[in-house]
Amino acid sequence: MYALAIHGGAGALPPRPLRSEREQAFHAGLANALGAGQAVLERDGCALDAVEAAVTSLEDNALFNAAHGAVLTSAGTAELDAAIMDGEQLRAGAVAVVRTVRNPVQLARRVLEDTPHVFLVGEGAERFAEQTQLARVPNEYFITPDRRRQLEAIKAQAAMPAALEQPPFGTVGAVARDRSGRLAAATSTGGMNGKRPGRVGDSPVIGAGTYADNRSCAVSTTGHGEWFLRTVQAYDIAARMRYGGASLEAAVVASIEQRLPHLGASGGLIAVESQGTIVIRYNTPAMFRASVRSGEQALIHIY
Amino acid sequence: MYALAIHGGAGALPPRPLRSEREQAFHAGLANALGAGQAVLERDGCALDAVEAAVTSLEDNALFNAAHGAVLTSAGTAELDAAIMDGEQLRAGAVAVVRTVRNPVQLARRVLEDTPHVFLVGEGAERFAEQTQLARVPNEYFITPDRRRQLEAIKAQAAMPAALEQPPFGTVGAVARDRSGRLAAATSTGGMNGKRPGRVGDSPVIGAGTYADNRSCAVSTTGHGEWFLRTVQAYDIAARMRYGGASLEAAVVASIEQRLPHLGASGGLIAVESQGTIVIRYNTPAMFRASVRSGEQALIHIY
Repeated sequence: MYALAIHGGAGALPPRPLRSEREQAFHAGLANALGAGQAVLERDGCALDAVEAAVTSLEDNALFNAAHGAVLTSAGTAELDAAIMDGEQLRAGAVAVVRTVRNPVQLARRVLEDTPHVFLVGEGAERFAEQTQLARVPNEYFITPDRRRQLEAIKAQAAMPAALEQPPFGTVGAVARDRSGRLAAATSTGGMNGKRPGRVGDSPVIGAGTYADNRSCAVSTTGHGEWFLRTVQAYDIAARMRYGGASLEAAVVASIEQRLPHLGASGGLIAVESQGTIVIRYNTPAMFRASVRSGEQALIHIY
Repeated sequence: MYALAIHGGAGALPPRPLRSEREQAFHAGLANALGAGQAVLERDGCALDAVEAAVTSLEDNALFNAAHGAVLTSAGTAELDAAIMDGEQLRAGAVAVVRTVRNPVQLARRVLEDTPHVFLVGEGAERFAEQTQLARVPNEYFITPDRRRQLEAIKAQAAMPAALEQPPFGTVGAVARDRSGRLAAATSTGGMNGKRPGRVGDSPVIGAGTYADNRSCAVSTTGHGEWFLRTVQAYDIAARMRYGGASLEAAVVASIEQRLPHLGASGGLIAVESQGTIVIRYNTPAMFRASVRSGEQALIHIY
């Protein structure tokens, strides 16, 4: 059997309920991304390829806060972060502050495959991209009118603290268990609306926003990036399983529903363990999410 | 009581034993840094200030691979990474690919104190530095003739893989437990000799190279940065204690002496727990290290 889960971010509810047209568009985007990942798993592809395919689809969709449609820095630019990890051999690739690579998750995959390194950032990541076949785009490609308006709104509030209290929807991610039992995770984001240029959140940080180990679980998180960095959120789930003997569900509940609220942090995560059990939890009002297991119907939810 | 430990890197032995004059210089550098941190603890200062003081001293010493005397990228430049974490409230600050800030650990401290963020990299970190009172220097300040020669040597070997197999000495770090029972950790590095520009290792990554939580331990690592990113090394120690009920010593031994060699990874770490017990372990031939506890004699060792 195989299992796949994706997310399009967790956060506060919009000021008024999403209008149904827009809600349908989010549903369709999640369905497309889930289908892209599932197609890989259905043809016996590996979990690593499946999460890359799903996240690529979400990156290309302007509705989500990753690549095309990313939120903007205080300087009005898009700076993109992504990571991917293979639970089979703990191989990982990550990039941050990328400005011209159309699909940052694919650049993270190339770091994993083609370099002795795990994490490349900024200009160095751009220079590495030149040595790959990956599509490059001007920074304007990522920037949508919606995100410009959101940046203006947050600047009007003059409010980084407010931004921290109300993380926007949108970071995307995927976790998968393929038919051979391999686990993988990937995450991609534009970060936080109005962030300081050069700011890196949890998404591209192995152990914080992204983690996979066949012996425990694969995890992709979304929410308060700064808190998830401090709590080493993704690896915290794996460690509760490996060292505390917790089930995936018990580990996630303890970490997301008990520990994070105690710290005043909000967000959510998707996770899958070696037997294909999927767990999705969030302590925010809503989270864009979808999942499917071989032979079962796909589930797509927002609230 | 208080406790303080520092390291100046773990790695393979130099081709021939360090000549005694050079060995004395390393001893003196470790003693100075230990003294700088101890002075803070002796006057009832906090653990966070103590680790910052100790690491600043090591950064200023050209013998160690951090700030002045850092190893160089393949482009011949110095790109500096550092992190600092307060175990009291899980506050953390980190910077990577810094090129003009004399003491990167101090910039990491400013990220912790003055921003809502945890991690700033590259140009964004430099721009943030402009808003602080921190000393700025041209990149040449960091570059020593020794490091230029080492870069030429590794280029002659045309060998990133070799570099990965033989991590050089030098990453620096400190962990402390102050008289009030607060824990803190800090790490600073130039990274890996001949690294690709933009490469980030474990040192500035919270959970990988640096971690502190009053309820478990403070950890600073040195070694195979890429492996320590994949194994989420520093948090792995804390998690073995919190979720597995291990003592600090048992956690470190299991992680460094059993897990890492099984993966083919080498390195070491310094750690201190809430009662002031210090544990230092490495699976490399040598590690520059020093420690002291209130009322006890300082220990300084290389082999």
